[in-house]
Amino acid sequence: MTKHTGKFITIEGTEGVGKSTNIAFIKEWFEAKNISLLHTREPGGTPMAEEIRELLLSKRDEQVDAKSELLLMYAARAQHVSQKIKPALEQGQWVLCDRFSDASFAYQGAGRALGLEKLVELDHWVLEGFKPDLTILLDLPVEIGLSRAQERGPVDRFEEEKIGFFEQVRNGYLQIAEQEPERVKVVDASGSLEEVQQQIKQVLIQFYEQQVSML
Amino acid sequence: MTKHTGKFITIEGTEGVGKSTNIAFIKEWFEAKNISLLHTREPGGTPMAEEIRELLLSKRDEQVDAKSELLLMYAARAQHVSQKIKPALEQGQWVLCDRFSDASFAYQGAGRALGLEKLVELDHWVLEGFKPDLTILLDLPVEIGLSRAQERGPVDRFEEEKIGFFEQVRNGYLQIAEQEPERVKVVDASGSLEEVQQQIKQVLIQFYEQQVSML
Repeated sequence: MTKHTGKFITIEGTEGVGKSTNIAFIKEWFEAKNISLLHTREPGGTPMAEEIRELLLSKRDEQVDAKSELLLMYAARAQHVSQKIKPALEQGQWVLCDRFSDASFAYQGAGRALGLEKLVELDHWVLEGFKPDLTILLDLPVEIGLSRAQERGPVDRFEEEKIGFFEQVRNGYLQIAEQEPERVKVVDASGSLEEVQQQIKQVLIQFYEQQVSML
Repeated sequence: MTKHTGKFITIEGTEGVGKSTNIAFIKEWFEAKNISLLHTREPGGTPMAEEIRELLLSKRDEQVDAKSELLLMYAARAQHVSQKIKPALEQGQWVLCDRFSDASFAYQGAGRALGLEKLVELDHWVLEGFKPDLTILLDLPVEIGLSRAQERGPVDRFEEEKIGFFEQVRNGYLQIAEQEPERVKVVDASGSLEEVQQQIKQVLIQFYEQQVSML
């Protein structure tokens, strides 16, 4: 009997789009279908990758080189994928990850203006084509997201960036969604929680039915 | 008037080959020529890069993915080059660095068997052709170096590797020296300190005279 591998789902978006709340919703939706999701996050997900996260988010006097930042992200990702995500998927476990490669494309490629081509090269070097099966992109005008994020408390090194940076990040995300409409589903996160979750539910139903039909 | 940029010199070798002692010798030799060397090291050289060093050298229960290790090395290197080495060279300052890219080729490419081609790709992505002007490779049979290194005290995550790993690292280093004989000068580090420094002196005289003749 062939063993089915798990599915890899990621959730993406700029600051304050409501990822945490909606991750809980997605987990519950799948649990009702008897599918438990391993919930993890980036940067992070293993003890070493979480140490890299600390290093990345710390505010510092030193100017951080954009390439160095991106290499740290991918160092954490290589560790996370090899030690946690792939072993789980191979055992048939479904995985839900709060941010993944698309975040590097958006934050470092578009936000830091390293360029998408440069990003593609590194992503390919590290991941050799490994991608999520489904990505839910929560999209929101930058001002709304930032004011929500600021209500949460102290900001990290990324959250202290200027609004223009986040505009570029948002555009980077939307560009990926345009290039890969099959994998990346854009959800308008500006409405009420019920409206947002109604949209997410439609995405999940469609994805779930595809998987079932392929069994 | 054209401003002359500084020269970038690196010193390489496996554990216990005597880098520290000979770095002092090299600095003194150049000081006698009225050239002061900025002494730095890898992984490290800036506060953030030193934090990455700590993360790399710490012993851990988690298995460290070879690509993740290499990406951390290059994250530290990108920061070090952009924030410290290149700015110094551009001001005419000469720089002496304890280990650089060749160490990644030897330790991760050969030692961890990631392959030299994979290394070349990443090195090019990060450094875009930036290389030392002179590299002094202190070469020593692995057993001798390791017994010297163990006398120094507690070992780090790399030093606890088995002897076969260091044999591969040494061979990796010698392979680079064979490919780039103009840049990489091999010094037999198995003799007395006087014999080793006599060889280093010959390398420095040759390099210095080349630089002077080009002025």
